[in-house]
Amino acid sequence: MPSKNAFYAQSGGVTAVINASACGVIETARKHADKIGKVYAGKNGIVGALTEDLIDTSHETAEAIAALRHTPGAAFGSCRYKLKGLEENRAEYQRLMEVFQAHDIGYFFYNGGGDSADTCRKIAEFSKSVGFPIQAIHIPKTVDNDLPVTDSCPGFGSAAKYIALSTLEASLDVASMSATSTKVFVFEVMGRHTGWIAAAAGLASTPQRPIPIVILFPEVRFNPASFLAKVKQVVDNYGYCSVVVAEGVKTEDGRFLADAGYTDAFGHTQLGGAALVVARMIYSELGFRCHWAVADYLQRSARHIASKTDAMHAYAVGEAAVEMALQGENAIMVTIVRIQDDPYFYQIGSVPLEQVASLEKKLPPEFIDEEGYGISESCRRYLYPLIQGEDYPPYQGGLPRYVRLQNLEVPKRLNKPFLL
Amino acid sequence: MPSKNAFYAQSGGVTAVINASACGVIETARKHADKIGKVYAGKNGIVGALTEDLIDTSHETAEAIAALRHTPGAAFGSCRYKLKGLEENRAEYQRLMEVFQAHDIGYFFYNGGGDSADTCRKIAEFSKSVGFPIQAIHIPKTVDNDLPVTDSCPGFGSAAKYIALSTLEASLDVASMSATSTKVFVFEVMGRHTGWIAAAAGLASTPQRPIPIVILFPEVRFNPASFLAKVKQVVDNYGYCSVVVAEGVKTEDGRFLADAGYTDAFGHTQLGGAALVVARMIYSELGFRCHWAVADYLQRSARHIASKTDAMHAYAVGEAAVEMALQGENAIMVTIVRIQDDPYFYQIGSVPLEQVASLEKKLPPEFIDEEGYGISESCRRYLYPLIQGEDYPPYQGGLPRYVRLQNLEVPKRLNKPFLL
Repeated sequence: MPSKNAFYAQSGGVTAVINASACGVIETARKHADKIGKVYAGKNGIVGALTEDLIDTSHETAEAIAALRHTPGAAFGSCRYKLKGLEENRAEYQRLMEVFQAHDIGYFFYNGGGDSADTCRKIAEFSKSVGFPIQAIHIPKTVDNDLPVTDSCPGFGSAAKYIALSTLEASLDVASMSATSTKVFVFEVMGRHTGWIAAAAGLASTPQRPIPIVILFPEVRFNPASFLAKVKQVVDNYGYCSVVVAEGVKTEDGRFLADAGYTDAFGHTQLGGAALVVARMIYSELGFRCHWAVADYLQRSARHIASKTDAMHAYAVGEAAVEMALQGENAIMVTIVRIQDDPYFYQIGSVPLEQVASLEKKLPPEFIDEEGYGISESCRRYLYPLIQGEDYPPYQGGLPRYVRLQNLEVPKRLNKPFLL
Repeated sequence: MPSKNAFYAQSGGVTAVINASACGVIETARKHADKIGKVYAGKNGIVGALTEDLIDTSHETAEAIAALRHTPGAAFGSCRYKLKGLEENRAEYQRLMEVFQAHDIGYFFYNGGGDSADTCRKIAEFSKSVGFPIQAIHIPKTVDNDLPVTDSCPGFGSAAKYIALSTLEASLDVASMSATSTKVFVFEVMGRHTGWIAAAAGLASTPQRPIPIVILFPEVRFNPASFLAKVKQVVDNYGYCSVVVAEGVKTEDGRFLADAGYTDAFGHTQLGGAALVVARMIYSELGFRCHWAVADYLQRSARHIASKTDAMHAYAVGEAAVEMALQGENAIMVTIVRIQDDPYFYQIGSVPLEQVASLEKKLPPEFIDEEGYGISESCRRYLYPLIQGEDYPPYQGGLPRYVRLQNLEVPKRLNKPFLL
């Protein structure tokens, strides 16, 4: 019996190391050419499976696939497209089965966050129910670090390193300027629902090199009076202050700070990003000159300063997904299991997808210090290993040599377009 | 006759490599211990000279001084404080002379931009006129690259590399997401009056790896209709677009875009950073989902990805300033003289400060392409050498090991406070 092909897709917001997982999948599948046929990638994620736009990765050289390990973004395109529930849209699942059957796909590797874990589980179930069983393995990925069970999510460590590093560098800048000019630097980071990335900024300050950093977590309701008092106290003590604000910080009435804005003394509501709102508030109420930055995509694409630990994790979960599939596993998520903090040891594990569900792992209350504006020692111990090591990409002409694949499409076999 | 001491101060906005110039000054002065006494640094720039807050760098170890080469920010503090004209505030110049005389200072090294070049010139003149001649040498520094005569300004190359790199990485991100989600990434960079930094983003796109980047330069008046048509055309062709907007872009009536805002269909004026204004305009008029980032301090403190060429320039101008002072030079600015583009050769030169004046070097018209949204080949040839090479700092615990000096103050000799 000829080997089944594999399908691999990237889902949701990308990370600096999601392609390292793709590299792990493809390189490991190639090692098992006797058991796995070709690896087809979804063009723009699961959407490519629905529209039968599949990329044949077998055309790529070993060098090109190896270069995925140090290339950010999603090499095959990603998407924000959540499959509906089985009851609501059975047609989507049927279509997926048709495409998979037409291309003789027996393995489904889905590289994403919570939503894609859910999709993965449904595909395993549905394929079994229609008599065309597909082994569906979820490969975790998210800068938000919000997946349950796994100790950390590949992608997060590199974002955390970038944010800690950027906070350190910008803090040296504002410290330099504070005597006669800017006293407060406000830095907006990702985290709509969870404060993992914001927490990473806390690593910039150490007992040997203390830096005054005030963190606004989505897990802590924003209290303007308490916050302003804190910033004033810090500036009085240190002469300057860095404020790190997660995009998802909410006001006491439950609205996003960025949407709620800030009403100044003249009654004008100031809308903008969270950083802008916070900077205006500080300047208006305390009179301190502020600078503000918004990291946005930079924090999840900064492959140039990826964490070596994170890049290693990302590759390992891709590799393990294939190995586990070959061992007959199905409907699982690959996990990172921490053995100990220091020195850091981990191993790769797995969890049935039904235990992953759509749970969001928030920052535990004990990771936030008593005042609510900093990280605790336990948080520091957790985060520290994840940013260790630099995994520099190769450079050419002053910029990283990121690979662009050929991405040749697999000839279509179904004569049926599918409308999304 | 005992050797005269030297005074060194950092001025204005800092850069990723201004401390490399400090390192060049101090290490070179230490090599000439027979001719130069101590190097005193101004605490928070020239302000420290006025208030007699001098830092004695002789207490720092050779290792600490060497580590300045890879440490961003201003190790001694910087300031935004422009000395007035001689006629307007003679008292300031007299005070400087008193402080310099009290501490036996014969060399004045001022590390900054256009304003500090001007101050440097006045100090040379004034000190001569009062019979206490001080050799005043200006060491160029500015991320804006706007000083005349010198081919480039130390600090710019690293900012340029950071912006080109960040544009590349974020573009890979938005390209990944564009099929079903965000199609446009808007990136705000520094440049209140000149488009040098914005131009550097153009390096992210090469013939081998074309990336659709639309640049908004301060030198080109912003025309919303033309800009929106350009973005639409790019998205239609490539599926996505990166827009790089200099903070100083102005509307056709001469106001900063960020101040002028954008009035949406409902008549609401949307204020914010330039990136926010542009992103809202694109979403509102073209319906493309946008993400936006503001680099702010990150671009001028990103020592972790400094250009090796730039770090070398920064050290070299500091070193040359001391050598030139010892050769009897006075009232000059050290310059970088380009010999050829490719392979890049340069040498260190100098220019009398009276020729520097307060001229601002804007992007030449021939560096901007015909449409006004990109860089020309001549611009590319100019910029390319400046971002070459990576000059990684050492790391410890996942973050760069940046040095913090002891900064011990020189005992005051004048019993006279000075009110700024």
